[in-house]
Amino acid sequence: MTRELTPKGSATRQRIIEGAAAEIREHGVAATTLDDVRTRTGTSKSQLFHYFPGGREELLLAVARYEAGRVLSDQQPQLSRLTSWRAWEEWRDVLIQRYRRQAWDCPLDAVVSQLGRSTPGAQAVLTELLNRWQGEIAAGVRAMQEQGEIDPGLDAGQAAAALLAGIQGGVVIMLSTGRLTHLEAALDVAIQHLRESRDRHPADH
Amino acid sequence: MTRELTPKGSATRQRIIEGAAAEIREHGVAATTLDDVRTRTGTSKSQLFHYFPGGREELLLAVARYEAGRVLSDQQPQLSRLTSWRAWEEWRDVLIQRYRRQAWDCPLDAVVSQLGRSTPGAQAVLTELLNRWQGEIAAGVRAMQEQGEIDPGLDAGQAAAALLAGIQGGVVIMLSTGRLTHLEAALDVAIQHLRESRDRHPADH
Repeated sequence: MTRELTPKGSATRQRIIEGAAAEIREHGVAATTLDDVRTRTGTSKSQLFHYFPGGREELLLAVARYEAGRVLSDQQPQLSRLTSWRAWEEWRDVLIQRYRRQAWDCPLDAVVSQLGRSTPGAQAVLTELLNRWQGEIAAGVRAMQEQGEIDPGLDAGQAAAALLAGIQGGVVIMLSTGRLTHLEAALDVAIQHLRESRDRHPADH
Repeated sequence: MTRELTPKGSATRQRIIEGAAAEIREHGVAATTLDDVRTRTGTSKSQLFHYFPGGREELLLAVARYEAGRVLSDQQPQLSRLTSWRAWEEWRDVLIQRYRRQAWDCPLDAVVSQLGRSTPGAQAVLTELLNRWQGEIAAGVRAMQEQGEIDPGLDAGQAAAALLAGIQGGVVIMLSTGRLTHLEAALDVAIQHLRESRDRHPADH
């Protein structure tokens, strides 16, 4: 969808998405109808279909994109500034806190499940989120390598992929058991591994 | 449910579970009815309700337990014998191969989603699977510590929890993207971390 919207149109569209996201967070995906979203956002049926001609599915996809963006923005500014061990530890704490608050519920997971995890739209949203997340972690690893704090021979992309897998798994286990132990273990072991890599291969400078 | 079944009764019940599991693997959870299961397993309505008085939901829960058992048995005998680095690498390969074959589809995930991930029955099945899986990995770490191949000061339970999180995340990412990169990275980085721990703290013996 590449329709051009006026600034006012974009604002209305965004207001509908945020209203739908809030409605879904409060009542769940299954219980949220287009009428609920219209009532909450004060929009007419024709407005809703003007901005989301594909109806409920198109709106859900926009909500998924919005929630995916929140997953990353909730980790900022720490995630984009992984340039000291203190910053890594702060990011770790922010992430744990975020999921502690959320506990059993992940709005992105709920919307994506409803869309169907293997539909092209849901896949695109998830793939983009994972790529950006992994890119930020890898940039942090490289920044620490440049400072001589991480073994320069370590594969930053692979380390970031492994850490991202650990985070995803930690969250999935939390959604099934209510416990954060695995998310904490994944983060702590990965950060410890990165820190210790320097001792094996001290930087020359 | 603690009803006592005769050996013949147990065998019939198991035959129904395996038939339902096969039906679900072929046609998906949503498309599988109790009539399909009856036809496939040659059982009558009254037999089915004798063994599964709770109906479809109770049968699905039994299938989830069966599929959870398969997740572990598919990793055997390697998973229970992580007593050399060669065994760890073989286990890694078995796990990758298993998910490569399975690609987009995880029968356990499908059944658990249908039951509702947060229902007590589904949670119990997943929690037991995760506990057993993590216990086997931790036993492998301890076996290598006893041989002086892993730093004896390393927390085996935490290492196993982190590795299990990485595996779950790798599988979840594969289900969303079709790619095994993250599962491979999680396994390779974790095993490398365990191997290198010895160099930092060589065993005394």
